[in-house]
Amino acid sequence: PHNEKLLSLKYESLDYDNIENQLFLEEERRMSYMGFRCLEISRWVVCGLIGFLTGLIACFIDIVVEQLAGIKYQVVKENIEKFTEAGGLSISLILWAVLNFTFVMVGAIIVAFFEPIAAGSGIPQIKCYLNGVKIPRVVRLKTLVIKVCGVICSVVGGLAVGKEGPMIHSGAVVAAGVSQGRSTSLKRDFKIFEYFRRDTEKRDFVSAGAAAGVSAAFGAPVGGVLFSLEEGASFWNQMLTWRIFFASMISTFTLNFFLSIYHANPGDLSNPGLINFGRFEGDSVTYNLYEIPLFIAMGAIGGLLGALFNVLNYWLTIFRIRYVHRPCLQVMEAMLVAAVTATVSFTMIYFSNDCQPLGPESTEEYPLQLFCADGEYNSMATAFFNTPERSVRSLFHNQPGTYNPLTLGLFTLTYFFLACWTYGLAVSAGVFIPSLLIGAAWGRLCGILLASITSTSSIWADPGKYALIGAAAQLGGIVRMTLSLTVIMVEATGNVTYGLPIMLVLMTAKIVGDYFEEGLYDIHIKLQSVPFLHWEAPATSHWLTAREVMSSPVTCLNRIEKVGTIVDILSNTSTNHNGFPVVVQPAKLCGLILRSQLIVLLKHKVFVELARSRLTRRKLQLKDFRDAYPRFPPIQSIHVSQDERECMMDLTEFMNPTPYTVPQVTDTLS
Amino acid sequence: PHNEKLLSLKYESLDYDNIENQLFLEEERRMSYMGFRCLEISRWVVCGLIGFLTGLIACFIDIVVEQLAGIKYQVVKENIEKFTEAGGLSISLILWAVLNFTFVMVGAIIVAFFEPIAAGSGIPQIKCYLNGVKIPRVVRLKTLVIKVCGVICSVVGGLAVGKEGPMIHSGAVVAAGVSQGRSTSLKRDFKIFEYFRRDTEKRDFVSAGAAAGVSAAFGAPVGGVLFSLEEGASFWNQMLTWRIFFASMISTFTLNFFLSIYHANPGDLSNPGLINFGRFEGDSVTYNLYEIPLFIAMGAIGGLLGALFNVLNYWLTIFRIRYVHRPCLQVMEAMLVAAVTATVSFTMIYFSNDCQPLGPESTEEYPLQLFCADGEYNSMATAFFNTPERSVRSLFHNQPGTYNPLTLGLFTLTYFFLACWTYGLAVSAGVFIPSLLIGAAWGRLCGILLASITSTSSIWADPGKYALIGAAAQLGGIVRMTLSLTVIMVEATGNVTYGLPIMLVLMTAKIVGDYFEEGLYDIHIKLQSVPFLHWEAPATSHWLTAREVMSSPVTCLNRIEKVGTIVDILSNTSTNHNGFPVVVQPAKLCGLILRSQLIVLLKHKVFVELARSRLTRRKLQLKDFRDAYPRFPPIQSIHVSQDERECMMDLTEFMNPTPYTVPQVTDTLS
Repeated sequence: PHNEKLLSLKYESLDYDNIENQLFLEEERRMSYMGFRCLEISRWVVCGLIGFLTGLIACFIDIVVEQLAGIKYQVVKENIEKFTEAGGLSISLILWAVLNFTFVMVGAIIVAFFEPIAAGSGIPQIKCYLNGVKIPRVVRLKTLVIKVCGVICSVVGGLAVGKEGPMIHSGAVVAAGVSQGRSTSLKRDFKIFEYFRRDTEKRDFVSAGAAAGVSAAFGAPVGGVLFSLEEGASFWNQMLTWRIFFASMISTFTLNFFLSIYHANPGDLSNPGLINFGRFEGDSVTYNLYEIPLFIAMGAIGGLLGALFNVLNYWLTIFRIRYVHRPCLQVMEAMLVAAVTATVSFTMIYFSNDCQPLGPESTEEYPLQLFCADGEYNSMATAFFNTPERSVRSLFHNQPGTYNPLTLGLFTLTYFFLACWTYGLAVSAGVFIPSLLIGAAWGRLCGILLASITSTSSIWADPGKYALIGAAAQLGGIVRMTLSLTVIMVEATGNVTYGLPIMLVLMTAKIVGDYFEEGLYDIHIKLQSVPFLHWEAPATSHWLTAREVMSSPVTCLNRIEKVGTIVDILSNTSTNHNGFPVVVQPAKLCGLILRSQLIVLLKHKVFVELARSRLTRRKLQLKDFRDAYPRFPPIQSIHVSQDERECMMDLTEFMNPTPYTVPQVTDTLS
Repeated sequence: PHNEKLLSLKYESLDYDNIENQLFLEEERRMSYMGFRCLEISRWVVCGLIGFLTGLIACFIDIVVEQLAGIKYQVVKENIEKFTEAGGLSISLILWAVLNFTFVMVGAIIVAFFEPIAAGSGIPQIKCYLNGVKIPRVVRLKTLVIKVCGVICSVVGGLAVGKEGPMIHSGAVVAAGVSQGRSTSLKRDFKIFEYFRRDTEKRDFVSAGAAAGVSAAFGAPVGGVLFSLEEGASFWNQMLTWRIFFASMISTFTLNFFLSIYHANPGDLSNPGLINFGRFEGDSVTYNLYEIPLFIAMGAIGGLLGALFNVLNYWLTIFRIRYVHRPCLQVMEAMLVAAVTATVSFTMIYFSNDCQPLGPESTEEYPLQLFCADGEYNSMATAFFNTPERSVRSLFHNQPGTYNPLTLGLFTLTYFFLACWTYGLAVSAGVFIPSLLIGAAWGRLCGILLASITSTSSIWADPGKYALIGAAAQLGGIVRMTLSLTVIMVEATGNVTYGLPIMLVLMTAKIVGDYFEEGLYDIHIKLQSVPFLHWEAPATSHWLTAREVMSSPVTCLNRIEKVGTIVDILSNTSTNHNGFPVVVQPAKLCGLILRSQLIVLLKHKVFVELARSRLTRRKLQLKDFRDAYPRFPPIQSIHVSQDERECMMDLTEFMNPTPYTVPQVTDTLS
């Protein structure tokens, strides 16, 4: 059975470049030079549209979250201020908890009951999709709607989550929708882009959509391109990459442009992403050569903490799979987490007595005075009583001395467990921002400790850069992305000189983390039993040859094959391959035909006998394959009568006549 | 013959991933898991070394150029100041011309007489190398030395050239040298990295070296990675890309670090590249949506001017190939260009009466007063009397009003023709900076004209951003790079919001330019008759099938083949393929063997008869192939006696037993 799986996977990944049927190849041959040009232009148009719509969605999420969170924090703040002197802060706690509770409940209900695939960040699902494994309903319109509403609810609900990961999923759904020129859910077919209704093209566009999502989330167009390449591409195609880059650029530009209008400052294109780390500039934030070992040590800490996070989350997910699989239980768990998050945050703020002066240039949006003296505010509250994005920025850029070490330590500890508990809930939410926040907190703590150990040298004066390094280390330790994450961080930082330290930190975090446990996304992919193909073949397979992974005897079809045989092969669960070699006797390969193609043929009853008897019957065209794409019915739903089973099918004009072949002894190294 | 060429090319590009012989495959199979890990670690070490050395070379070039140019300009400036009042400026002109003359002469002599391949920027040669076409001597140590000295001479000699392009070539040579663990020129073999002595690995490292070169030249590590991918990769490999990125990062960091020490400001890592566009920040340099059509129009102008540049240079190059092919003529032409450049510059400065006040914050290094009033300086001189890098920065960042339109117009015109004449001379020099300079000049001119047309709106106030757009347009119009150039420009600008306009401008410039003429590098590749394989198959080949490009009858070898037959096939110029199918009768493919492998076998006389007769003779090992790599002798130099011609050779254990195969009807679309 293991061999079978590998084989069918191999067939599926063949999708990528050599599976088209004869009809398609003929259409391509007939296509003129101008036809190719038009096609290329429409690809660009589609990518532009993908970028534009993804940017709009990001903009929508950002504005709605900001508005709703603003109202929430304002109400709670006023309430707290009213009751601080008078006593009765428990009422404020209840108010806060109930508000969070309500938002999270709505978010969890729509996800758990209407579209469970919209839970989480969606990055594991998109990784699988780009890897060639189709997960049902992952790029549907309904998923997008639930995702967008869900992420708004969970961020406003004060969970330890971010809105960045879901953008990648949203971008992918937009791409899958736009590129097909129709919506099966809405039953609308615009009769455009019909050429793109096949796996290869659709997957290319989904790559562009994911890149546009990254670009909108982090203001990182190049990072988006590299994310798509890292997750999706096996062949480098210059024009495709260029189009992906175009989609990314349009996406970040659209977001930037509309946000600048929203902030009543049109033309100020300084908000390229949903999260912006702010500028790291000036003398205080440069680093020195001898700090690099420190950064690497922080990378190792990030790797360790990330592995701990992943192990805890792994156990939690196993527990959830066993005991919390009913939607109502999932909703209740989400509500519990919301209530606990609010209570813990409130308690931390309440018992903290870290008061900081409220300077005139202070950028806190909701400073809580609580028991501090007039003109001061509670420093713990800046970390908890804020959207996580703002908290990250505060940790990066606030003046030295804004936080005391105890505050940061307690915050790291609580937020770590809250974030770990939250990831995997039935809500739409990302893990990027919580990771950055945890890392920024302990990173800043490291910076403060270094400054206190080494007397007051001006070099260590700025804990903000340690917050940045810590954030990178923690995020790297959890998700284990490398190339694209470096570029994303560098672009979000807006300072290329931090490239080398961030890179070294991410590498260290990955090496240390991988020693203990896989990355968070890989854990979740594995727990969902998706047969994911990694870049590198597993070490034990280095000596495997093609012969050893092939199933024997070979399931193959004749060029002219009996319908009954085909139906039996497709129905038989032991031959659940995705593609079948077509042979002429004696066993000479002449083509490859896909399961989906066979199903379309059976559905249209393209039988030799019928073709002869009913001459008026129109020939099966490429359009029929495209109309059926991508929701091919299962074989069980196709009724074939006993008479029809005796008919013959001629596969010649539908198979791909030029599949790749490898000799039996080819191994994974070649 | 055309078919032959295509076929042999196909074989050569097969190098990339499936050409190893049986001995190699066996070694890989024997290799343990730890062996693979060690190999991977040494790849990282090599990449780190490549980055470090490339950064050092860039640093060396930068410092030497700055020192020598500083001395030159100081001497000339003092001379001019002495003679301005007294009259006799012609003496200054002669001094300037003679200085330039001398430097350029030295640069041209070493290039023309000792290593002609070191001429130009080296980018076309590296493109070819990464494309799989080996150009002799392109990655030798001698080439590197001549290149470095040559580029110093030509930049200091005041030619219209830059030192950035040659960095890419230098990085590639460093990579080819370091990765092999030996220098054939110095006859030193360090007995390390022997595993990397084969085309696949070497080419991967050369990609990394080219990326490190780009990174050092422009402070653009991500741009470097994308440059390598755009030019070299056909398969995307995550680990390889990650290593390339590492080399790039180390390279820019090394340059930055040593330059900071040189500038007596260690730790100030703000000089990531040889050219730095300076920060584009603040309110005056943001752009508005309605400026984008203007930018696109400028892109079109850039495309037109670029095509004109390329056409002129094409004719000039044809002229040079016909009439200026003797080294001494080449040296004389270079000296002529040097003298003319100095004279033209001097004349332009002399007759210009564009005087600007010398403010206290003025950043001119060598302000020439000439006939201006006290406290003023000649504005034309800032453009000519400076290294081109500084001139570009001045055009980007000087206050509005620093240049008057006439100065800019005249400068554009003269520099355009000077740069066009200079490219292709027998000196080491790049075309990036002259292109940027021409573009920045007319771009700034556009900005000034726009401001004067539309009254004094504050939006148009800053001509610097138009200079940037013009520079991008001109460079894009000349070299026609797209993806990597956008990223390079964005990284050099340090401002991601300029990403979209730069991208649109480069696309427009490419589309408009391609309508008239190919890119400059492609022209030179074509003029050198290199059979370069582009990303996209030519439009007319869309209907070609594999059968049509194969030569017939197939030149193939038997598993056990007569030595005479092999020698004849290798010597026959009509079968100058790079690889030969090995068959068992009747015509069943069982492997592929390369020309170079056959030559090694012949050289070591691995004949069946000899093996039987002399039992003590050691077996041919993988090491023998590696020692011969990469300078395999031509077949003519291998002496095979008449007796030996009758011997047999057993190819079984040396051929690659699992070559890729495609059916005859496969076309270029699949």
